[in-house]
Amino acid sequence: MSGVAIRERAAVETLVEGVLRGERLTLSRAISRVENQEADAAALLTALYPHSGKAHIIGVTGAPGTGKSTLVTALAQSYRSAGMTVGIVAIDPTSPFTGGALLGDRVRMRALAGDVGVFVRSMATRGSLGGLSKTTGDVVTVLDAAGFDRIIVETVGVGQAEVEIASTAHTTLVIEAPGLGDEVQAIKAGILEIADILVVNKADRPGMDRTLRALEMMLDIEGNGARYVRHHGQLLRVESPVESDEEESRWKVIVMKTVATEGIGIDDLRQRIEAHRHWLLDSGEMALREQLRIANTLENIIRAELNRRIASSVPAGSLDALVEQIRRRESDPYSAAAGLLSGI
Amino acid sequence: MSGVAIRERAAVETLVEGVLRGERLTLSRAISRVENQEADAAALLTALYPHSGKAHIIGVTGAPGTGKSTLVTALAQSYRSAGMTVGIVAIDPTSPFTGGALLGDRVRMRALAGDVGVFVRSMATRGSLGGLSKTTGDVVTVLDAAGFDRIIVETVGVGQAEVEIASTAHTTLVIEAPGLGDEVQAIKAGILEIADILVVNKADRPGMDRTLRALEMMLDIEGNGARYVRHHGQLLRVESPVESDEEESRWKVIVMKTVATEGIGIDDLRQRIEAHRHWLLDSGEMALREQLRIANTLENIIRAELNRRIASSVPAGSLDALVEQIRRRESDPYSAAAGLLSGI
Repeated sequence: MSGVAIRERAAVETLVEGVLRGERLTLSRAISRVENQEADAAALLTALYPHSGKAHIIGVTGAPGTGKSTLVTALAQSYRSAGMTVGIVAIDPTSPFTGGALLGDRVRMRALAGDVGVFVRSMATRGSLGGLSKTTGDVVTVLDAAGFDRIIVETVGVGQAEVEIASTAHTTLVIEAPGLGDEVQAIKAGILEIADILVVNKADRPGMDRTLRALEMMLDIEGNGARYVRHHGQLLRVESPVESDEEESRWKVIVMKTVATEGIGIDDLRQRIEAHRHWLLDSGEMALREQLRIANTLENIIRAELNRRIASSVPAGSLDALVEQIRRRESDPYSAAAGLLSGI
Repeated sequence: MSGVAIRERAAVETLVEGVLRGERLTLSRAISRVENQEADAAALLTALYPHSGKAHIIGVTGAPGTGKSTLVTALAQSYRSAGMTVGIVAIDPTSPFTGGALLGDRVRMRALAGDVGVFVRSMATRGSLGGLSKTTGDVVTVLDAAGFDRIIVETVGVGQAEVEIASTAHTTLVIEAPGLGDEVQAIKAGILEIADILVVNKADRPGMDRTLRALEMMLDIEGNGARYVRHHGQLLRVESPVESDEEESRWKVIVMKTVATEGIGIDDLRQRIEAHRHWLLDSGEMALREQLRIANTLENIIRAELNRRIASSVPAGSLDALVEQIRRRESDPYSAAAGLLSGI
């Protein structure tokens, strides 16, 4: 082993020990290395992974304007008052074109500043509009290994986010608010499918009853309770006919009201999340969701590594030349791909 | 070469000849083979590719309820009256969980039935909510090789679709309608960034002026005219300060009104699309967009092939066993991925 390699291993060990001791500065540094996909990220995650698997992961998603950040802040405070520590990963959507944040620089979760039992990390989606960052799962692993009891992942529910959050979280909250237009119902339908708990926030606003009725109607149509399986790389929801003795083993999606700005309904929400956690453990569903998370993680690691290999096997500039050849119809993408693949 | 291989090659040749002659039944069959990713799809596409590159590809995207299908139908009729043939690829979003169509079985574009100069194909997104199907680009290649002058790709603008359509189409239309709620503006902002032409359809509805003003304001904020470059696998929009002699070479996004149900503004829309095509060719932007499309195609082919190799290199059941080992923390995803990669 070379001197450089020994020093690098020692640096990783120092980071790992700091994270396991819960040192905030080291934790920040470790998360940055993972988020920026530095060279030692894989070694760091390999060392931390055995210490993960204890935290309960809560996904929070919903359209812009539903008050997600306020609700997450209140929920974290509720967990703190119950004696639990909380890690928060807040995903800011970025424009895939400019790289800038779509929602601007909002000041997040100020009420949580100064509490050592809470760790807040903002992440940019980096090109996947509304989706999770590619490294979200890795950041969750670091926080999990650092010993936080509950980890909340907050993301704006547009596009792919809803699918990704369902394969990252143990319990998924979908946040709605009264008065959002009916024309986005088609989009909402996709989001509803992943909810374990449906929260109508801003419940003091006009239109509350209509929103609640609409949601309950949609849930009736979709059939309540779901099982997720992985099939050809897709997350599938399996609807099995409810047998009388099977009814117990299915989760009934809860619809509940909150006013996060006033703290109304938040302790109740926490208790329902905990009830869902107990159901997951008792029913064996937790193991299934964990398997799904792991399969996704594996897939992401492999994809990233293969992309790296392709990039490094193709000399700089020669890919551009290849693309130009194809554009002139002197070659075609299928023959060119075969050529690139043979080089890996 | 074996007898089977010779027969397969002969079958591909028959399909290719039929497509190039524009035989509708053969065209349908060829598209199905490409869409279902049959074993001979790559051979078929390799043979057809040299005959592609002549069609102008028009992407049409927008929120549900903006009247996209009606507008696409009217636009196709306008092209027909101008003596051009039109291929239409209509993407139906499917639920990633159930595989069912989100928008149901709507009867599409009846007005176009019976016209041999128009070919309509509906495709399901197959798991990518609101996005393009993985094989959309390949289906476009088949229609292009079959000789259609203009190819329209229609997709619902939620989530990733807007990014994907910008890297598939030469000219991208974003369809709006008056009266859509302000709360989806944050989502719209992302869609606006890809528009070459912004169409406010249903222009006879109330709220028209407000919608038009809002759109023009957003365009002002974003800065008008854009250049797309590919950077680390992402489509990026580059804003360069406008120099006085450079101004001519930038495309000014057009905002226009239509009432597709009445045919109002449709011929004008067609002429503006054609003007954009001329600008693309004259400015050299067409070559850039083609390069982007080709780079995306290459990436998709390589990704699909690598996924196939991973799947075939791992014995059935052993991946599940590996996932279970990781769940018990007897292994970790990073070591497991390294093991799987060494098997490829």
